[in-house]
Amino acid sequence: MIRVAILGSTGSIGRSTLAVMARHPDRFEVVSLAAHRSADRLAEQVAAHRPERAVLADPAVSLPQSGDGTRWSQGRDELIELASDPDVDVVVNALVGAAGLEPTLAAVQAGHRLALANKESLVAGGSLVLKAAREGGGEVVPIDSEHSAILQCLEGSTRESVQRLILTASGGPFRGWSRERLEVVGPQEALKHPTWDMGAKISIDSATLANKALEVIEAHFLYDLPYDCIDAVIHPQSIIHSFVEFVDGSVLSQMGFPTMELPILYALCWPERVADATLRNYDPVRASPLTFEDIDHEAFPLFHLGTEAGARGGSAAAAYNAGNEVAVQAFLEGAVSFPRMADVVAGTIERVGQSEVVDVSDVLAVDRAARLVAEEIAHGVGNRMGTRT
Amino acid sequence: MIRVAILGSTGSIGRSTLAVMARHPDRFEVVSLAAHRSADRLAEQVAAHRPERAVLADPAVSLPQSGDGTRWSQGRDELIELASDPDVDVVVNALVGAAGLEPTLAAVQAGHRLALANKESLVAGGSLVLKAAREGGGEVVPIDSEHSAILQCLEGSTRESVQRLILTASGGPFRGWSRERLEVVGPQEALKHPTWDMGAKISIDSATLANKALEVIEAHFLYDLPYDCIDAVIHPQSIIHSFVEFVDGSVLSQMGFPTMELPILYALCWPERVADATLRNYDPVRASPLTFEDIDHEAFPLFHLGTEAGARGGSAAAAYNAGNEVAVQAFLEGAVSFPRMADVVAGTIERVGQSEVVDVSDVLAVDRAARLVAEEIAHGVGNRMGTRT
Repeated sequence: MIRVAILGSTGSIGRSTLAVMARHPDRFEVVSLAAHRSADRLAEQVAAHRPERAVLADPAVSLPQSGDGTRWSQGRDELIELASDPDVDVVVNALVGAAGLEPTLAAVQAGHRLALANKESLVAGGSLVLKAAREGGGEVVPIDSEHSAILQCLEGSTRESVQRLILTASGGPFRGWSRERLEVVGPQEALKHPTWDMGAKISIDSATLANKALEVIEAHFLYDLPYDCIDAVIHPQSIIHSFVEFVDGSVLSQMGFPTMELPILYALCWPERVADATLRNYDPVRASPLTFEDIDHEAFPLFHLGTEAGARGGSAAAAYNAGNEVAVQAFLEGAVSFPRMADVVAGTIERVGQSEVVDVSDVLAVDRAARLVAEEIAHGVGNRMGTRT
Repeated sequence: MIRVAILGSTGSIGRSTLAVMARHPDRFEVVSLAAHRSADRLAEQVAAHRPERAVLADPAVSLPQSGDGTRWSQGRDELIELASDPDVDVVVNALVGAAGLEPTLAAVQAGHRLALANKESLVAGGSLVLKAAREGGGEVVPIDSEHSAILQCLEGSTRESVQRLILTASGGPFRGWSRERLEVVGPQEALKHPTWDMGAKISIDSATLANKALEVIEAHFLYDLPYDCIDAVIHPQSIIHSFVEFVDGSVLSQMGFPTMELPILYALCWPERVADATLRNYDPVRASPLTFEDIDHEAFPLFHLGTEAGARGGSAAAAYNAGNEVAVQAFLEGAVSFPRMADVVAGTIERVGQSEVVDVSDVLAVDRAARLVAEEIAHGVGNRMGTRT
């Protein structure tokens, strides 16, 4: 039995994880569930899956009680403690944003497999995560479809044989749009992703291509490749989930109709593949044609801003990530226009400056400082949506 | 140093093998070269590559002398003997047709790696080849781009995790044509392959899709999968070289701009990947779009005839292969029309009947019998091109 803790169980990835696990009751056991503040949904999950522990991170929400024998607790420290529970084999981190960093560190420091959907924790503190994994004996296995694709393509190959990664991006709902046309799009349009059904933060990140920059940084840490060996390409159908190019010029890719359940199952059982007839089989004819386009850097500057921040190293990616989280929230609240999000992030990186990252307190300090700066830029005078200065 | 014998060195695959080896002189040594009857070209290769031995299989062609220190000999037995030379590490079998079977058996029986471009030897005597490899300790590594793609996708995975193979086929020069329209095509049109530059036999086989049937049978033997787990799909761009589907529904594919040099290099060095900057890097945007179509079984009946023969087992595939070799030759000579090739093969399989295959003499007997029958059908009354009975 693989004993699993799910942090962020009430979100899209968390629910998919529970669905996958429920189909394989002989393999998986839900040990603990944690959510940020969706108390009712968490209570339902606890009643259905009877975990040993349940944690609600937000101390301001009143704690439900459900599930005979489930021990409930509350607060962020409790959530972090779940990740290091010695009684767990795999920690699924499906939290949103840089808030996922401490649980990520706790899980790998405790020697667990970390099935990681929270890419922001690698973006903000990738070098710390790798160090903690080395020290604690843990490992990071990605849940992101792109990184899962890469992991699958790398199976059986050596690090030296890899020449380049090419991540695919759907291009989001505004693929092909000009920067000018993007001035007037609102949250409702941006949340409509053409191929994936996801949470709000990642949907907006997909629309701006910030998500792809986060994934390039994530790939850099997961697969130990320099930034100039990691490319991205627009692939509107989201069938090919990424490519790996080897030193002999050969390219492998992983493909399939879009579903997060496959990368989740793979991350839980890797390197074993577990039969799952529920997952829809790929059909090349029905999925034809597959098309590819270059990224439009003028319309979607958050991609280049992010990969540049990653390549600069140190605290730059953490500042990018924090600035982006604030910018997305400000866009969702109607405080900034779609193109203005990139300005918020660029301004944040510039004003926060570059510093070294030695431990988690450095990252948290940069994260806090960047949020303050980003808030200031986003909510400053003349930044209301549609009135870009 | 990897010591290599090339059987069929003057053909397309043989020349590409020499080109690849010449780029990596620190890794490879040409030990012996053999050709069927291209004496002049073989003499040039011998002068350039200075092998220890050179063999011309056809005893009727006068033997050239070139290359100081190269020992020349002549005849089919000499060629078979080259394949079992204990001083060789890898035997490249790039012969054409069922004539490749005995050298294939000799190579794996001698414990060598067999880099196999001669798919007909697996089609005619697959079970014998596997048995000889088990007994002699040899191994078969495919040079075909499709099977090389599958091998690359299977790297690091277990047999139990594989659910299905999907071979890609360019569709040849007549993709989309009706059976009626195919009545009037001649050899010159059929030899013009849209994406690959190959020898005459394989070019015609690609145009009829017989080649894809041969490859399905080859895949059955190479990867130990039943026929209902091996599909084929038309992919006109020849970028994706094949797919492997796993039990969890995930699909891997190998891709790249068409070149035989990559699968040759891979077969020589597998499982190691050797850096080769000469090979053109894949560019998804330049290769876009990738399209896929179902096979038109009415216009291209040789595909289904072949996979059916493979599935029947015993001597059926050998009869199919021999009938097809005769049909292709008859078509090239203008003796039968394009659609009539399938009739020749179907008639051959039916009249030769089904028998067990215990040793190589059984295969050779079926091969001879099938050729006689096929010649009779192909050159019978009323079978001239365009006058289908």
